[in-house]
Amino acid sequence: MKLLEDRIREDGRVLGENILKVDSFLTHQVDFALMKEIGQVFADKFRQAGITKVVTIEASGIAPALYVAEALKVPMIFAKKAKNITMTEGILTAEVYSFTKQVTSTVSIAAKFLDKEDKVLVIDDFLANGQAAKGLVEIIGQAGASVEAIGIVIEKSFQDGRQILLDAGQTVVSLARIEKFENGQVVFAQADA
Amino acid sequence: MKLLEDRIREDGRVLGENILKVDSFLTHQVDFALMKEIGQVFADKFRQAGITKVVTIEASGIAPALYVAEALKVPMIFAKKAKNITMTEGILTAEVYSFTKQVTSTVSIAAKFLDKEDKVLVIDDFLANGQAAKGLVEIIGQAGASVEAIGIVIEKSFQDGRQILLDAGQTVVSLARIEKFENGQVVFAQADA
Repeated sequence: MKLLEDRIREDGRVLGENILKVDSFLTHQVDFALMKEIGQVFADKFRQAGITKVVTIEASGIAPALYVAEALKVPMIFAKKAKNITMTEGILTAEVYSFTKQVTSTVSIAAKFLDKEDKVLVIDDFLANGQAAKGLVEIIGQAGASVEAIGIVIEKSFQDGRQILLDAGQTVVSLARIEKFENGQVVFAQADA
Repeated sequence: MKLLEDRIREDGRVLGENILKVDSFLTHQVDFALMKEIGQVFADKFRQAGITKVVTIEASGIAPALYVAEALKVPMIFAKKAKNITMTEGILTAEVYSFTKQVTSTVSIAAKFLDKEDKVLVIDDFLANGQAAKGLVEIIGQAGASVEAIGIVIEKSFQDGRQILLDAGQTVVSLARIEKFENGQVVFAQADA
């Protein structure tokens, strides 16, 4: 997605070895117009797929996922993150390890919002090690629902998340794929849409 | 907002003394169509106010705030919640106590996203004790920006959040105001819009 790549080049900030900050339009301040375009691109890709739910994870996935849901005219569900969940009745959970934060979180979705008829499009802002997406796929599987595809706004293609998801039989569609950082600049690989 | 009150009557679940669960359309599963209407109602109310930024707090405030931002054609910023923030350079923070969870969180916004020219509309999903909104007002004040108003989706009018904000000189606009729960049903007070 050229508009997104251009925006990353313009407003993204490369920090250290492998961090890209996009807090001016995606992860902290949010540009609704770009999110809306992102929603359209994913919807165009999956309009014929019979998607019934869009699932993401709080908090930065919510904005793009919401516009995907709007464009596909289906509900959006955001999974909750919590260190510990005591009340587990009616809750589907997965453990997700964050390499960045070096903590394991319990990610959860209320069971009542997914059933075996559901065809889910998973949306997330970043794909790096794939742990969050893997956790969502696990939860959706617990509900007996199927994951149609995983839509990613920004993929760090030099990390192994994409391969982990492909190995698990998933379809991954990333709108911007970062091959590497070079002299503080982003070098993109061919995107999926 | 009648559409919202109807939806709360239909899909909200009253639990115990003072809990209203609206996880089927606002706080977990999100109905984009209702959020879009909410965005329109707030925007109609504040279109002449010269709003430059919409500010909310993760995670449930993001969906309504995003559509308010779209309708007003301004950026949306979601404040981050964290137990501890070590890196505080360039970060505006406030301590927010949650009576529900009985924990104090540090709420933060990167200083670069707000300046003294900004006229901010604060949006949040719930107003109960007013602590989250108060924290956001404090942060926005630190940036030298002004808070035009605080827009709330669901106000629990039997708790003291509204009065706390009014006493602090703020304008509060709530789309649904809950006077009390009676036999597991919601009794509404007159809404602000």
